Amino acid sequence: MVTEIGIGMLGYAFMGKAHSRAFREIARLDTPLQPRLVAVAGRNEEAVADTAARYGYERWTTDWRDLVSDPAIGLFDNGGPNSLHAEPTIAAAEAGKHVLCEKPLGRDAAQSYEIWQRVEATGVKHLCGFNYRFVPAVRLARELIEAGELGEIRHFRGRYLQDWGDDPSLDTWRFQPDEAGSGALGDLGTHVVDLARFLVGEIATVAGFVHTFLPGRRVDDALEAAVQFESGPIGTIEATRLALGRRNAFQWEVNGSKGSLAFDMERLNELQVFRADGDRARGFKTVLVSEADHPFWDLWWPPGHIVGWGDTFTHEALHLLRAIGEDTDVAPYGATFEDGYRAAEVCDAIVRSGETGNRVTVEYRPAK
Amino acid sequence: MVTEIGIGMLGYAFMGKAHSRAFREIARLDTPLQPRLVAVAGRNEEAVADTAARYGYERWTTDWRDLVSDPAIGLFDNGGPNSLHAEPTIAAAEAGKHVLCEKPLGRDAAQSYEIWQRVEATGVKHLCGFNYRFVPAVRLARELIEAGELGEIRHFRGRYLQDWGDDPSLDTWRFQPDEAGSGALGDLGTHVVDLARFLVGEIATVAGFVHTFLPGRRVDDALEAAVQFESGPIGTIEATRLALGRRNAFQWEVNGSKGSLAFDMERLNELQVFRADGDRARGFKTVLVSEADHPFWDLWWPPGHIVGWGDTFTHEALHLLRAIGEDTDVAPYGATFEDGYRAAEVCDAIVRSGETGNRVTVEYRPAK
Amino acid sequence: MVTEIGIGMLGYAFMGKAHSRAFREIARLDTPLQPRLVAVAGRNEEAVADTAARYGYERWTTDWRDLVSDPAIGLFDNGGPNSLHAEPTIAAAEAGKHVLCEKPLGRDAAQSYEIWQRVEATGVKHLCGFNYRFVPAVRLARELIEAGELGEIRHFRGRYLQDWGDDPSLDTWRFQPDEAGSGALGDLGTHVVDLARFLVGEIATVAGFVHTFLPGRRVDDALEAAVQFESGPIGTIEATRLALGRRNAFQWEVNGSKGSLAFDMERLNELQVFRADGDRARGFKTVLVSEADHPFWDLWWPPGHIVGWGDTFTHEALHLLRAIGEDTDVAPYGATFEDGYRAAEVCDAIVRSGETGNRVTVEYRPAK
Amino acid sequence: MVTEIGIGMLGYAFMGKAHSRAFREIARLDTPLQPRLVAVAGRNEEAVADTAARYGYERWTTDWRDLVSDPAIGLFDNGGPNSLHAEPTIAAAEAGKHVLCEKPLGRDAAQSYEIWQRVEATGVKHLCGFNYRFVPAVRLARELIEAGELGEIRHFRGRYLQDWGDDPSLDTWRFQPDEAGSGALGDLGTHVVDLARFLVGEIATVAGFVHTFLPGRRVDDALEAAVQFESGPIGTIEATRLALGRRNAFQWEVNGSKGSLAFDMERLNELQVFRADGDRARGFKTVLVSEADHPFWDLWWPPGHIVGWGDTFTHEALHLLRAIGEDTDVAPYGATFEDGYRAAEVCDAIVRSGETGNRVTVEYRPAK
Repeated sequence: MVTEIGIGMLGYAFMGKAHSRAFREIARLDTPLQPRLVAVAGRNEEAVADTAARYGYERWTTDWRDLVSDPAIGLFDNGGPNSLHAEPTIAAAEAGKHVLCEKPLGRDAAQSYEIWQRVEATGVKHLCGFNYRFVPAVRLARELIEAGELGEIRHFRGRYLQDWGDDPSLDTWRFQPDEAGSGALGDLGTHVVDLARFLVGEIATVAGFVHTFLPGRRVDDALEAAVQFESGPIGTIEATRLALGRRNAFQWEVNGSKGSLAFDMERLNELQVFRADGDRARGFKTVLVSEADHPFWDLWWPPGHIVGWGDTFTHEALHLLRAIGEDTDVAPYGATFEDGYRAAEVCDAIVRSGETGNRVTVEYRPAK
Repeated sequence: MVTEIGIGMLGYAFMGKAHSRAFREIARLDTPLQPRLVAVAGRNEEAVADTAARYGYERWTTDWRDLVSDPAIGLFDNGGPNSLHAEPTIAAAEAGKHVLCEKPLGRDAAQSYEIWQRVEATGVKHLCGFNYRFVPAVRLARELIEAGELGEIRHFRGRYLQDWGDDPSLDTWRFQPDEAGSGALGDLGTHVVDLARFLVGEIATVAGFVHTFLPGRRVDDALEAAVQFESGPIGTIEATRLALGRRNAFQWEVNGSKGSLAFDMERLNELQVFRADGDRARGFKTVLVSEADHPFWDLWWPPGHIVGWGDTFTHEALHLLRAIGEDTDVAPYGATFEDGYRAAEVCDAIVRSGETGNRVTVEYRPAK
Repeated sequence: MVTEIGIGMLGYAFMGKAHSRAFREIARLDTPLQPRLVAVAGRNEEAVADTAARYGYERWTTDWRDLVSDPAIGLFDNGGPNSLHAEPTIAAAEAGKHVLCEKPLGRDAAQSYEIWQRVEATGVKHLCGFNYRFVPAVRLARELIEAGELGEIRHFRGRYLQDWGDDPSLDTWRFQPDEAGSGALGDLGTHVVDLARFLVGEIATVAGFVHTFLPGRRVDDALEAAVQFESGPIGTIEATRLALGRRNAFQWEVNGSKGSLAFDMERLNELQVFRADGDRARGFKTVLVSEADHPFWDLWWPPGHIVGWGDTFTHEALHLLRAIGEDTDVAPYGATFEDGYRAAEVCDAIVRSGETGNRVTVEYRPAK
Repeated sequence: MVTEIGIGMLGYAFMGKAHSRAFREIARLDTPLQPRLVAVAGRNEEAVADTAARYGYERWTTDWRDLVSDPAIGLFDNGGPNSLHAEPTIAAAEAGKHVLCEKPLGRDAAQSYEIWQRVEATGVKHLCGFNYRFVPAVRLARELIEAGELGEIRHFRGRYLQDWGDDPSLDTWRFQPDEAGSGALGDLGTHVVDLARFLVGEIATVAGFVHTFLPGRRVDDALEAAVQFESGPIGTIEATRLALGRRNAFQWEVNGSKGSLAFDMERLNELQVFRADGDRARGFKTVLVSEADHPFWDLWWPPGHIVGWGDTFTHEALHLLRAIGEDTDVAPYGATFEDGYRAAEVCDAIVRSGETGNRVTVEYRPAK
């Protein structure tokens, strides 16, 4: 039997739009729990009203507290600026609502830890918006690694390259330290750290730094780090907003004792797969991840008919609704707030390494 | 002021799903005419009811005549099997409804001509579902050619390669001559012909043939043709359902006296662009067609965040709704029924060339 | 025991240089028969003297008959213009010398047949310079097909795209009908036909034409043809000197019932390999054909350290020297003069198809 | 007037073969100084005799001192194991011979400094075998950067990935600390450091480490480092012999304020070029670096007819012979022993950073 869950959305900009579109898509998909778009909150009255009308929210508000106090809302989705992640998310969870919060979870590891612990204590489901876990090719990568097809992992190299930051006049909340917490680090670096952890495991040490190129810019533009994983692999973590020509190039490669995988978000439907299987015709396969047996593909089209970047949010929302509806775990295929916190610890460690000039061992605070 | 237009959808399978999803997406986009999903028709009661529920149609029916007679419906969308294209589409137009019909328009050129002429006479807007005109990269290609950036065109080479036909047990309507009219020719070949015409112009002669590989198969599996265009260019038109490893590889290349373009539907967000501009660094650019100034991109995400195959239907539906709402022409960026008819003439000519062994001059019947 | 064979080279331009370099390379490779560069012939005294000095020929001459009459010469290599293929090659063979002749063998099928028959009658070894059979990736393709890894072949699509012809002032022998015989057809089209035959088998029918774009040009610029092979496959054969941005893009694809192969000469070290083997990770492999077990690779470097276009001539020359030294057959991995003749028949058929507007069945004259 | 210089080659294995082939090629190229292959030295009598015969050396010896004392030798080429770099190279220079020494110059920075200083003092020409400066695409990259086409550089990311090290039984000199000095660091990492310096400038700090994966292996398998350049750019330097599927993947990317470049040695004929020039069709160009105006291309074929990996040695040798013949500088397009030394300082710094856990500022010793 299909039942409904009320959605309360905070934010109507980039992420607000992406999440709202996802919930609308789910209406046509199989899930025991169907989203009902109850309300959207945002600061600008005109903009939030427009979003409500376009996406079919029943009402809108300029005060997120209205969402928290609304009993018709069962899932609070926080797509607001980073500075608005902690308080509303915790309040919603403490009001008994399941929560989805965009990344980075908090502005730093301490705040992220606080969010995780406070929310975890309430018993609600929580998902941190690392939507790239829900790219079909990334999920396939995880499954191949889990199945042992790469053997023992030796390397992870991840870099998230964009170029839109190359404009000194940029002045959104993403460039305000108070609102964003950091620049490329929280925006792009956390994604790299999350997939590193998702694919390879916990990061043990980092040696690197963040860097700001543009005069007057108050957040970091880029980061570089050499890393070691707890289970032995080594590699690099990089992100920048100043790699001209790279629009959304989140590229990563994993090398193991039996094979390798490589990926580029600008071609997100493809996974490069190498297996050391003794085949005379030896090389990386370009796998168009679009077969019926690939994760999420049953939602879509015949093989070879590709999906778009925005569709990752549909997969993510569907995963969370299934977890709520069937009372299953968000982890490991979805990122929990613990994952959000752990990514933040690694990011903080990169900052500290840059400040001190030392290689930093990442210390993860335990669940209380 | 936003007004509504009622949608009546015939078909709930592949195309029915793709079109319905598109109309749902449009709710959140700028168009003076918003779609209202009035009714969906299909033969299987359970399936059509399910589709109605998932996509939000107000009602469903197993008789397409219910759509034609429903005054709440202003746009009739025909996504049914090819054998159901003619009668319902003509009836809907004659009932004063605008019409969208999937390709191939009719089962052959004669039927396509009949559909075009009967519908044209009613004065409604008509669009034939050549959705690949609405791939942002294809539209950019057209605009670059229109702007003269390629100079005089010399070559068009188009091939649509799939491999799902390699299964002797396949038995859907697509393999019934009565229902489909043809095999790869109408399914894939028409797309190649349409983009050839969209990008380069009318085809003057064809020398080629259709071919069936699998024993017992009653429609063609593939076609090969050498072609000449009226304005001078030469090239090839090919399609097959038996190119193993090619899932949706609609690949084409255009060469002109100032530059070249190349494209592959499996990477539909990319256009390869070469310009003979004397630059020392000479080569094809891989353009990720995702900038704010590219056609349709304002609907989507920041640059580099790609769209999917299904999103071409959203662009197509939006184009038609704008043409209806603003009383503008469907042509030239959308395919009209005249385009549907002209593609059919070329396809028929390929069949005749194969039967007679002669190069065939394509004769286009004039509008009455 | 290593013995020597004297080389007499006709031509010092493009092919003369490529062949001479190949013979020099062979000195350092394993072959029972080592080349000794006896003499080079050419029309321009200064140029031929310079070539002799640079490449180490013992002497030079402006009269090719000096090569034919020189008992020190055991292998006559004809890299001259097409109009100089027949007489010197036949004369050399009748003087008892083994012969290597560049493609196209003759100016048309009739002359090619004459060359083949006259040379065959002498009993010497003969090789026609289809050097692309000696690209390691092409040879691997042939071996995979021979081993049945592609199953029954269904398609061959070959196109040789260059752009240097886009210059009306070009005036070398390649643009003189008397000297070249044809334009893109003999220069590029023959290569496509040869690899079609090498990989897939004899061509049965062609429907197509040659075309000249540039006003005043006296040879063809391009050709287009739809073809059927004797054993069942269908496909296309294309070539042009006017595809801007394509410098040496000899691209082909073969599709069979078990897999597919694809290739581009601009990345000649790579072969794209698809196998329908049920692997969940499904796609084309990019095989860097550079392993020790790949044909010719033992001559070169560690895996992944690629070879260049010119090295195909080294492989070709080595193959011929081994055939001479060990008295083994040039065929099937090398092209004989019979192959040169058969390619010419297909090319002539394309011309006739264009002239008559009919599909032409290729008639191969038998060996006498 | 062409004059000769006698070559004395130390080594007949991988590098010995590559260099000898290069000298043979130069005979047919324009240089005022033609190489005469006087003698080759190596430990194994049979192997060295075979090399002498194949490549045309006039004599061979098992004692490199014979080369040093031979007045017929004007250029001493050291392609021996790393442990044999210092003594013979210095001795040859002090005997008045020009010297070419393979990389890494010495086993560590101290030894490299010693070699550089001792050789520099003699006044002979010296070149360190960083042959990748002589890849046409790399040279074009350098020229584009020099011409300011990339603006101010912000990032360099370089990684040299191979996989042949994944075999515990490997036991050549390359795995003996005494003979090799290091593993992936000296073999591959030095190449990355050299091109980083060639393209972007001096490296100021490194934070990273070397790592050995295989039990029992006595040299490093891989290295990872985050780096800062003196002039401001930041990035990473990586190398590994354990990236399965990567055979010779020396990949690097440079991002500047006006554009970006990217490269992969497995496709060494191609350079990816992005320019922020406001063109609507925005993207990386795949430049097939094979035009007549590209460095070294005059030695080769028509555009698009690619060269191979081994041909980089021909360019390198030609560059050195021209420097000797015309008394011009080896720098900046060729690497001198100073470049060899500076690369060694960076490599040593990576090792120290790993040992101490600190970011290390690279201290370059001045010329005396």
